[in-house]
Amino acid sequence: MIALTLPTAGRQSEIRIARGLLHSEAAPLVAATVPGRRALIVSDTNVEPIHLAPLASGLQQAGFTTLSLALEPGEQNKTAASLERIYRACHLAGLTRRDTIIALGGGVIGDLAGFAAATWQRGIYLVQVPTTLMAQVDSSVGGKTAIDMPYAKNTVGAFYQPHAILVDPDTLDTLPPARLSDGLAEVVKYAAIRDPGLLDLLEGRSLADLDYATLVERSIRTKADYVLADEFDQGLRMQLNFGHTLGHAIEQLTGYEAYFHGEAVSIGMMLALRLGAILGITPPGLIDRLGSLLTALGLPTTPPPLPAERLLGAVRGDKKLLGDSLNLILIRELGEAIIHPLSLNELAMLYAKLPPTPGAPA
Amino acid sequence: MIALTLPTAGRQSEIRIARGLLHSEAAPLVAATVPGRRALIVSDTNVEPIHLAPLASGLQQAGFTTLSLALEPGEQNKTAASLERIYRACHLAGLTRRDTIIALGGGVIGDLAGFAAATWQRGIYLVQVPTTLMAQVDSSVGGKTAIDMPYAKNTVGAFYQPHAILVDPDTLDTLPPARLSDGLAEVVKYAAIRDPGLLDLLEGRSLADLDYATLVERSIRTKADYVLADEFDQGLRMQLNFGHTLGHAIEQLTGYEAYFHGEAVSIGMMLALRLGAILGITPPGLIDRLGSLLTALGLPTTPPPLPAERLLGAVRGDKKLLGDSLNLILIRELGEAIIHPLSLNELAMLYAKLPPTPGAPA
Repeated sequence: MIALTLPTAGRQSEIRIARGLLHSEAAPLVAATVPGRRALIVSDTNVEPIHLAPLASGLQQAGFTTLSLALEPGEQNKTAASLERIYRACHLAGLTRRDTIIALGGGVIGDLAGFAAATWQRGIYLVQVPTTLMAQVDSSVGGKTAIDMPYAKNTVGAFYQPHAILVDPDTLDTLPPARLSDGLAEVVKYAAIRDPGLLDLLEGRSLADLDYATLVERSIRTKADYVLADEFDQGLRMQLNFGHTLGHAIEQLTGYEAYFHGEAVSIGMMLALRLGAILGITPPGLIDRLGSLLTALGLPTTPPPLPAERLLGAVRGDKKLLGDSLNLILIRELGEAIIHPLSLNELAMLYAKLPPTPGAPA
Repeated sequence: MIALTLPTAGRQSEIRIARGLLHSEAAPLVAATVPGRRALIVSDTNVEPIHLAPLASGLQQAGFTTLSLALEPGEQNKTAASLERIYRACHLAGLTRRDTIIALGGGVIGDLAGFAAATWQRGIYLVQVPTTLMAQVDSSVGGKTAIDMPYAKNTVGAFYQPHAILVDPDTLDTLPPARLSDGLAEVVKYAAIRDPGLLDLLEGRSLADLDYATLVERSIRTKADYVLADEFDQGLRMQLNFGHTLGHAIEQLTGYEAYFHGEAVSIGMMLALRLGAILGITPPGLIDRLGSLLTALGLPTTPPPLPAERLLGAVRGDKKLLGDSLNLILIRELGEAIIHPLSLNELAMLYAKLPPTPGAPA
C-alpha cells in the first residue's frame, strides 16, 4: 500500500493507494481516521451495485452504522436538488460533527458529497473513495467541491480537504475504455506541466497495458505538490489549468454532452500548445509528440467546428477571469509550465493566427 | 471611530464601530478592503428603505457598481430558497472572486449573505454591516454562517470570517424596544461569562439611556477573544453557549415564533443559573441580580409552560450534542463560566430538582 500525507492548512489528508483496498483496509482506515461511528455513503446508481457492498459491510464490521444514498449518475445531476437529497440523508442518518460522509464514485459524486460534508453542520468528516480514473488522478485530491447552478458550472462550492482519500485501482477494471481515456488526459497534463517521466509509462502502450496504480500514484504526488504550494488557487495552482481554459469553453459550447471533461481538456491542451508555439514559447516538436500520444490514448486533439468568436465568448465567462485579463497556461518545455497573462483581445488576435486544423473553421 | 483587527486563521477581519459610519466612512472602508469594484448588497424589505441609500451611493461614489437584493424579513426566510435568490443575484451582478457581498441587516441577513459569500465561486469577499443590536454584539462577529433546513435550524453552513465588520450604532435608533432587549440578552451573557464590568453600564438604566456604542464595543471585544481562542468551536468557544442549550430547545418547541432569540436565551440563562445553584456551583445571589437585570431590560426569565420531558427531548436534537452527552455552561462567579459535561440522563435528574417557577409546570 502506498501512503501519502497531504498537510494542508485545515488538516492532514491521509492518502492510501492499493489494489483491493475496498475489500480490505478501507474500512479499518476510515475507523482509524474519524471519531464518530455513523457514516453516510453517497454514490450513484452505476457505482452502488458494484462497489457499495464490500465497503459497507467492512464499515459495519468496524462498528459503523451506515446509510447509503445512490444518486442518478451524470454531470446533469450535480445540482442543488441532489445536494438537498444528501442533506436529508445526513439528517436521517443523524450525522453529527464527529461523523462522516464517504464519497464513493467519480468526480460528480466527489464534488456533491464533498460540498455536503463541507457544509453539513458547518463541516463534518469527509472520506473520498474515487472509482474513476479522472477522480483518482485529479478531482478527489485538492479539496475543491462544488455544484452547478443553471447559469454556471461549479459556481457554488467550497475548498474543503478530505480527511482521507482511499484509492483502489481495481475499480478501474469495470470502466469502459472512454472513461479511462477521460482520466488519462489529466495524466498527460501532469506530464506536460511537471513530470515528464510519466510519458515513459504512457507512450507505446495500449489502454489495457498501462500500469494504472503507478500512474495514479505519480499523478496524485504531482497534484499534491501544487495543492500544498497554493491550496486556495491564487497562484501556482493555476498551472493545473493547462488545457482547461479553452477546454471548459468547448465543454460549455457543446452543452457538456459531446465530450467527457478529459476529452475537452485534451483539445484544450493541443490548442494551448499551438498558441504557445506561435508565441515562440512552446517547441513545435512537443505538439507532435503529445498530439500522437493523446490520439493513441483515444483522445480528440482538434476542436469541434465552432467559430472562434463563440469560443472566446465562452472564455469571457470563465470563473478564473480577472476583469478583462486571463492567465493562459503554456508549456515552455516538457515538464515546465508558465503562467502567461494576456487580455481577451490579445487572446483573440493570437487565436486568429492559428493555422486551420481539420474540422475547425477559421 | 473604534478600530479592531480580528486575526483569525483564514484572514484579518477589520472591525470598525462609529456613529454615522453608514453615511461617511463605510464606503471608503469597503473600497480599501476589497480588490474588486462590484458589490451585491443583501438586505431585507424592512432594512432596505432605511439604510440602503447612504451605503449604496457612497459605494458608487467610491467607484463601485452595486446591485441590491431585499429579501423578505424573518427567520422563516433563512432558507435554501433565499440562498438561491442570492446566488442568482451574484450571477446577475457578475461577481468574481475579487468582488464583494455586503450583508446589510440583522442576524438572518448576515447568516444568509455570509453563507452565500462563503460558497459563491468557493468564497468571495464578505462585509458585514449589522443593523440590529443582536447582530452588532453577536452574530456578525465570529464567522458562523448558516441556513435552516425544514428539519433543523442552522444545520447547513460554513465557518467564514468576514473581511470587514462595519458597525454604525445609529442604526439602533430605528429599532423597536423589543429588538433592543433581544440583543441586550447577549450583552448580559458576556457580563456573566467574562466581563462583569458590563453590568455597571446596564443596571439602573432604561433602554433609552444605555450607551449602546460602548456596549457594542465591549461585547465585540469579548466575542473576539473567544473566536481567536477557538475559531472552529471545538472547546472554549462553547462558553458563548451560556443560556443557549436550553434557550434553543425553548425556541424549537415554540416554533420560533413566541420568542426572539435573545428572549429564549434570557430564559435559558436563568435556567442554567438555577441548575448551577443546585449543583453548588453558582452563587444563589447571582440568580437574583441577573434575574432583576434581565427583567428590567424587558426580557423574560421563566420558561413557558412546557413539560420537562419535551424540553429535554429538544435538547437531545442539539447540534452540539456529542453522542449521549452535552456540555452545559454554568457560571461559577460573575464573569467566570465553566464547561460542565453531563449526560442527558444527568441533566434530566438535575432539571427535576428545580423548584417550580411561575408559569412552568413541574
